[in-house]
Amino acid sequence: MTRERLYLYDTTLRDGAQTQGVDFSLEDKALLAEQLEGLGLDYIEAGYPGANPTDTKLFLQERKRGPAKITAFGMTKRPGRSIANDPGFQAVLAAKADAICLVGKTWDFHVDVALGTSLEENLAGIKESVAAVVASGREALLDCEHFFDGYKDNPAYALACAKAAYEAGARWVVLCDTNGGALPEEVEAIVAEVVKHVPGDHLGIHVHNDTDNGTANSLAAVRAGARQIQGTLNGLGERCGNANLTSIIPTLLLKSSYAERFETDVTPERLTTLTHVSRILDELLNRAPSRNAPYVGESAFAHKGGIHVSAVQKNPRTYEHVPPESVGNQRKLLVSDQAGRSNILAELDRIGIAIPKDDPRVGRLLDEVKEREAAGYAYEAADASFELLARRIMGNVPQFFDVDSFRVMVERRHNALGDLVTVSEATVKVRIDGETVLSVGEGNGPVHALDNALRKDLGRYQGFISDLELVDFRVRVLSGGTDATTRVLIESRDGEGRRWFTVGVSPNIVDASFEALLDSVNYKLLRDGAPAS
Amino acid sequence: MTRERLYLYDTTLRDGAQTQGVDFSLEDKALLAEQLEGLGLDYIEAGYPGANPTDTKLFLQERKRGPAKITAFGMTKRPGRSIANDPGFQAVLAAKADAICLVGKTWDFHVDVALGTSLEENLAGIKESVAAVVASGREALLDCEHFFDGYKDNPAYALACAKAAYEAGARWVVLCDTNGGALPEEVEAIVAEVVKHVPGDHLGIHVHNDTDNGTANSLAAVRAGARQIQGTLNGLGERCGNANLTSIIPTLLLKSSYAERFETDVTPERLTTLTHVSRILDELLNRAPSRNAPYVGESAFAHKGGIHVSAVQKNPRTYEHVPPESVGNQRKLLVSDQAGRSNILAELDRIGIAIPKDDPRVGRLLDEVKEREAAGYAYEAADASFELLARRIMGNVPQFFDVDSFRVMVERRHNALGDLVTVSEATVKVRIDGETVLSVGEGNGPVHALDNALRKDLGRYQGFISDLELVDFRVRVLSGGTDATTRVLIESRDGEGRRWFTVGVSPNIVDASFEALLDSVNYKLLRDGAPAS
Repeated sequence: MTRERLYLYDTTLRDGAQTQGVDFSLEDKALLAEQLEGLGLDYIEAGYPGANPTDTKLFLQERKRGPAKITAFGMTKRPGRSIANDPGFQAVLAAKADAICLVGKTWDFHVDVALGTSLEENLAGIKESVAAVVASGREALLDCEHFFDGYKDNPAYALACAKAAYEAGARWVVLCDTNGGALPEEVEAIVAEVVKHVPGDHLGIHVHNDTDNGTANSLAAVRAGARQIQGTLNGLGERCGNANLTSIIPTLLLKSSYAERFETDVTPERLTTLTHVSRILDELLNRAPSRNAPYVGESAFAHKGGIHVSAVQKNPRTYEHVPPESVGNQRKLLVSDQAGRSNILAELDRIGIAIPKDDPRVGRLLDEVKEREAAGYAYEAADASFELLARRIMGNVPQFFDVDSFRVMVERRHNALGDLVTVSEATVKVRIDGETVLSVGEGNGPVHALDNALRKDLGRYQGFISDLELVDFRVRVLSGGTDATTRVLIESRDGEGRRWFTVGVSPNIVDASFEALLDSVNYKLLRDGAPAS
Repeated sequence: MTRERLYLYDTTLRDGAQTQGVDFSLEDKALLAEQLEGLGLDYIEAGYPGANPTDTKLFLQERKRGPAKITAFGMTKRPGRSIANDPGFQAVLAAKADAICLVGKTWDFHVDVALGTSLEENLAGIKESVAAVVASGREALLDCEHFFDGYKDNPAYALACAKAAYEAGARWVVLCDTNGGALPEEVEAIVAEVVKHVPGDHLGIHVHNDTDNGTANSLAAVRAGARQIQGTLNGLGERCGNANLTSIIPTLLLKSSYAERFETDVTPERLTTLTHVSRILDELLNRAPSRNAPYVGESAFAHKGGIHVSAVQKNPRTYEHVPPESVGNQRKLLVSDQAGRSNILAELDRIGIAIPKDDPRVGRLLDEVKEREAAGYAYEAADASFELLARRIMGNVPQFFDVDSFRVMVERRHNALGDLVTVSEATVKVRIDGETVLSVGEGNGPVHALDNALRKDLGRYQGFISDLELVDFRVRVLSGGTDATTRVLIESRDGEGRRWFTVGVSPNIVDASFEALLDSVNYKLLRDGAPAS
């Protein structure tokens, strides 16, 4: 049986950026776009050129072409202006993008109150704007703002707007529940009316979660005929968030009533990266991931009650609606320390440490990991630190060098010109092969200075670390106040393109950073087979 | 037109207590029960007598009788035992409760795999158990565990269980989606079948949020005829949580398609306490409230984009699906990168700066905010830093003191006992009233030491800052590597319980922290009307 194609449109980088407390840098956007493309999204709405300097810059760049259509967001031309005389519209039209999604008003009340123009002029503006995008050779989409509220007040006008966009050549006419107040039964009934005028394979749905029905509303629209879903990762978005693609995508693939009817570019293999992609977004935003998020949350497959646990061990289907592995998540048995043991064994197997199940060192490692995680370490995010810890307990990590002491100084003062400048300097005393080496380094912060000092002279190991590079450095304060415990995660890479993560925890941010730095250097030496000193 | 009665059943204190990390004391339960009763809930499922000491004790107490029915939870009698010989069942039967809700199996697969008994014996157990509750003079309810999965596999058996409970005298037969995998269209279709056998005013719905459809599934069941909804406050509950009553109740009252058909004991006046009740639960659990929670979240009525803000100011209906006051929440207009003049003006108005719309300083402030946000500042999260910036541009922030220089040293070395210890020490040189003050402070990290040094002696201002306290400190690295730009957010509070947030940005984490610290101190001095030096 052939399945119908459903298209997935991600707007994490544009509508998601409307979230309170969220603002993406150019680098954030590039990283997330890559993840979204890898997951199999069809469209990536990357920003709104002209609205802010980051987005303007983003769409000046040429991009490496991948399968996803990079989409610029903008507004239909302003009333009273021609296309040529609307600089906002021209900024959008100039974007280096595969597709352009314009938002236009379709609620008569809004045309009047917010736009202050006539219904006719607004309709003409939609037509002209869509036509201008089509003429520019890009795929055109129209986000019908407030479509559902508009349809309830004045169905003929809302429909006329949708039809005008379709007739002007829009590839997709997207029905938006901008205020998020529509209910699933309303969405289903209204979309069923609209498909009589605009074919479903040209209709999209874009909803918000203000009544907690974002997922249900998106699915209701698909049942009624819409064939594009717009949403965001982790339901990011202003107010209560946009439709949550992290919830919708697994349902489309794992629930037979959808999986048998529809197909997307998200394959079952790609779906297993979903939990990872979701966590990357949180990591980037420095947010704790939502524990109870459907499918991807840390608790989504956690079982607490003894009866549930024993039933799940007999047959997971007793208390799990889908297999956790299908979305890259994992089962968690909260009362059973067996679960811990099997996790540890699976992890040791993954990194190539062969050890009998009942070796007492497995229990020691489990205890150590539990104790350290209670203190703030996060080994799930720091694979290299876990491997070092495991190999140390197994007894096979050589002692490469010892750090006797370090000192970091950050000084802010007026320079000779009278400007305030800040200088960071670090000294490190290291013992290698019985000799003491004292090194000094500068940097633009205490950790950078320490890193430079530590790596200035590691004697016989210098050759092993010459291609070691720190690519990211993340800090999370684990409890309140300036005297709180701090967790530092460091991402490193080397000349062969290998990447690894290490972790350090301390009330002192410099100590925590240094711990993660040392783990990174030791991991590199271990991996490359450096000899003990 | 008379409206049909819908009953609301809260299980926050029982099923909600299955959440990872949640564990209520007797006092917690008493406090929450009072709140739930005040809100107008019909049933409060308070615990499972016999399952743990707290719940056992709870149901030994006589309670002050209020309108809500306090309900004890338990299981149908064990297979192979008589009612009299099942101590678990007897513990439930002994509870001082107005109603008893038993959970029984209705999925043939589960009866076999998890219970290990025959379908006939399970059915007989349901009948006998419900009859025993009825005979004890209490209202009886049956939670039909896994009803939807059961119905999909063996509809006749699932239905037989529901009918057996009804015929044995159960006031409510509650259809449960225990694994949370059912979709709204399935729930609607299955409930529509069940009402042909058990009248809707005896049918309840109990769902979980594993596909992000908890709210939609509950509403779908009501549309199909069920007249009792079970759920929890804030969607508490194991895995992805139970149906979220905090989302469902406002929809029932504020959306006309439900409000015109149904009534509950939650009046519009009581609904205005919903946000407060939701926050009390978080407070009790020591959790940060979910910002983007529908209806009650801090961001649920927050507006960021400039166009949204100006439209909402003209008419809130443009971007709000219900009035925030109806649920006891409030509107929030955010200042940000996306901001336009109208956000800035609204924010100036809120902080009490009266300024004509066309004053050139508004444009200067807007430009400054945009430029600084592009550099990494986040003013929507740092209200105090925004106010300082705004008042500086308006020309009304006195210069209280100047910092000439500072120096921070972090040193790790072996102490006299041979242990590695880390010491952080800072010196700050401040000019106040033309005099130079040099202070030194220690701390368990560089920022803590700097904070202590700065606040050791601020001369005439010392009295103003004596009750200033730092309560949180957050760090975000804005782009990759140890030499990346760092943003520090500091939350402060004072003796009067006021809280404010400040921000600092720099490639150097110490500089960024110091900037946020200085803003916090200056904000406190400004707010308390300290004189210029």
